[in-house]
Amino acid sequence: MFSEIIKNVKNSTPLVHNITNYVTVNDCANILLACGGSPIMADDIEEVEEITSICSALVINIGTLNSRTVESMIKAGKKANELNIPVILDPVGAGASKLRTDTAFRLLDEVKFAVVRGNVSEIKVVGRSDAGGIRGVDASVADSISEENIDEAVQYVRSLSQKLSVVVAVTGSMDIVSDGTKSYVIRNGHPSMSKITGTGCMLTSIIGAYCGANRETIAEAAAAAVCAMGLSGELAYEKMKKNDAGTSSLRTYLIDFMSKIDAEMLKEGGKIEVRQ
Amino acid sequence: MFSEIIKNVKNSTPLVHNITNYVTVNDCANILLACGGSPIMADDIEEVEEITSICSALVINIGTLNSRTVESMIKAGKKANELNIPVILDPVGAGASKLRTDTAFRLLDEVKFAVVRGNVSEIKVVGRSDAGGIRGVDASVADSISEENIDEAVQYVRSLSQKLSVVVAVTGSMDIVSDGTKSYVIRNGHPSMSKITGTGCMLTSIIGAYCGANRETIAEAAAAAVCAMGLSGELAYEKMKKNDAGTSSLRTYLIDFMSKIDAEMLKEGGKIEVRQ
Amino acid sequence: MFSEIIKNVKNSTPLVHNITNYVTVNDCANILLACGGSPIMADDIEEVEEITSICSALVINIGTLNSRTVESMIKAGKKANELNIPVILDPVGAGASKLRTDTAFRLLDEVKFAVVRGNVSEIKVVGRSDAGGIRGVDASVADSISEENIDEAVQYVRSLSQKLSVVVAVTGSMDIVSDGTKSYVIRNGHPSMSKITGTGCMLTSIIGAYCGANRETIAEAAAAAVCAMGLSGELAYEKMKKNDAGTSSLRTYLIDFMSKIDAEMLKEGGKIEVRQ
Repeated sequence: MFSEIIKNVKNSTPLVHNITNYVTVNDCANILLACGGSPIMADDIEEVEEITSICSALVINIGTLNSRTVESMIKAGKKANELNIPVILDPVGAGASKLRTDTAFRLLDEVKFAVVRGNVSEIKVVGRSDAGGIRGVDASVADSISEENIDEAVQYVRSLSQKLSVVVAVTGSMDIVSDGTKSYVIRNGHPSMSKITGTGCMLTSIIGAYCGANRETIAEAAAAAVCAMGLSGELAYEKMKKNDAGTSSLRTYLIDFMSKIDAEMLKEGGKIEVRQ
Repeated sequence: MFSEIIKNVKNSTPLVHNITNYVTVNDCANILLACGGSPIMADDIEEVEEITSICSALVINIGTLNSRTVESMIKAGKKANELNIPVILDPVGAGASKLRTDTAFRLLDEVKFAVVRGNVSEIKVVGRSDAGGIRGVDASVADSISEENIDEAVQYVRSLSQKLSVVVAVTGSMDIVSDGTKSYVIRNGHPSMSKITGTGCMLTSIIGAYCGANRETIAEAAAAAVCAMGLSGELAYEKMKKNDAGTSSLRTYLIDFMSKIDAEMLKEGGKIEVRQ
Repeated sequence: MFSEIIKNVKNSTPLVHNITNYVTVNDCANILLACGGSPIMADDIEEVEEITSICSALVINIGTLNSRTVESMIKAGKKANELNIPVILDPVGAGASKLRTDTAFRLLDEVKFAVVRGNVSEIKVVGRSDAGGIRGVDASVADSISEENIDEAVQYVRSLSQKLSVVVAVTGSMDIVSDGTKSYVIRNGHPSMSKITGTGCMLTSIIGAYCGANRETIAEAAAAAVCAMGLSGELAYEKMKKNDAGTSSLRTYLIDFMSKIDAEMLKEGGKIEVRQ
């Protein structure tokens, strides 16, 4: 299944429209190219609909949002919905300010997302939204996912996915992807990835490429993207250690490995558990 | 000739004002320093004229344009014209949205450019403008330039240059620079360069530095910049292969080699054909 | 003293709010992580107060400022003052345009800064402000600091610090940090650092992290940050030479070494002279 997904990305070079923050935008563009997709960034309200229309997926990332770009996100998202193009949300910093939380809620209310990806605390904020008129899901799950609380965490992510009718991807020390029925627990990645900025943003952009090339299997595509990112991080960490390098080299190696990962490497290195 | 041009850059450290996109801006700044120039980025309408006034060249790049920055581009461009400072246009994504196409046309109408650089499809869009009241040039030339259609492509670029009274630089698998009389066909570069974002933007910024330091020989300066960029890409690709690295390392090596290329390396590695 | 300061950073992971330019923002975020801090970038006026409130320090950098972000800077700065959170100013390009100079003056007038960091020419512009109703300090000191004029330069920085009641950090071929009483002359660093963009911006962000984790010893924290940055630059230069690499690798190595420097390395490699 995952082999097919990654091959579809490499073969179709999905163009991904990103409305994203100016901190990690260059890394998002480069890792999209590395994974086999193609990036386009555009945030002016006059052009976002046209740009979305020529793309295979739309990624909305609310880091460094402002009043101008929020309106562009909504407009692009609605256009993507109209054209049945998958839309991915990265609610960066939801919970850190009212503006970010409100924007995440507004986006969830006005746009139909295919995937929402965030860390546990961001996803828990998203879970408090009453999008679709349904009250928020209880989020007593801890902010750090480990083997100790993985069952509870999977249950939470599954419920949230059902409530929001969206594939939810929670990433951290362990990753969970759920479509409300099937759930994937992914044990790739390395803690050192938290020492570079933008690993979350980059992953969300890659999910855009994977979903754009695999519209019929969104949850599997998101899980494959999470797995490819984690595997790249693992391999990058090993190379950093071997070369006695530091965190900027880690970032370089991460994108390097993303440009090298193919179906075979993913099959060999992926640590994915499926839970029905 | 090209030796002189690159020496002029290294000796005069031209300061280049960039009004550019937030995706590749850091790479543009770093490669400007690498090539021997110096970058300054400023896009607020209140300061662009002053900043342009202290610079040797102005680079206008319409990637991630918005209504605020378009006005700054026009204002800076007019100031540069007034002071006889060369202005370079990169019509990123012209044709992908009405906003970008219209902005490219408006810029060509209101500002006198020294050089326009883009890929074939962007340049063909530019060619449709009726800037100066002249109807667009026929653009039946294919989007990919190869040895098969190089004669036709050179003829097209030459005509467009004559029509717009601007040096036109078209880059892709083969590169063409023409001032309407002399044309340069450049066979440096490597296909892997398309796997990193911003090679086009970076080249346009470098053309700014080269033209800023060589105002009397704009076409030759643009051709030398195209050649230096292609050569850096070739050398970077070889190093990437040798090190079994990936596309992020390719980007690093590309800028590394730009910081090392001097008159001698350019003379030895440049593959430039002059056509009268 | 400096060992304590760097340990405090590593142990407390200070969160630093950056309102900064889009050219070097990614490097600022990555080097903040590398030095042991944590970055958050936010510039919308609706959220800056909230974001500042959860941070240990606020860094205001006026590169690529615009009318929208200037108001956010003022608002965030006032909030930080209210909460006694140290605020660091990087007056990028002060003197290059009226907008930048006026903004630097306005910030100094409306916000109480803990540290101002710039190169000599920027700091001399800052010194002309009559913030606090005091006339500007005489700035006949040369733009390049060397062993020949170091005494005069230290005297100038000390006077300016007294006048503005702020720790002043001037960086260049030699670095000076003064709180108006004690002054530090730092002889780390390497000239090649000027061939990469953002070394100044990165340093200012690091000063934010160091001051955020050491609020009672702001001058020492700033001096330690300057020293750590210089030392990283030295080590990066040596590695670049050894690897026969170029300026993009230098940037990578610089951040790499920042992620490796600890109390011991700083003690061994720091070249700090204290002047009472």
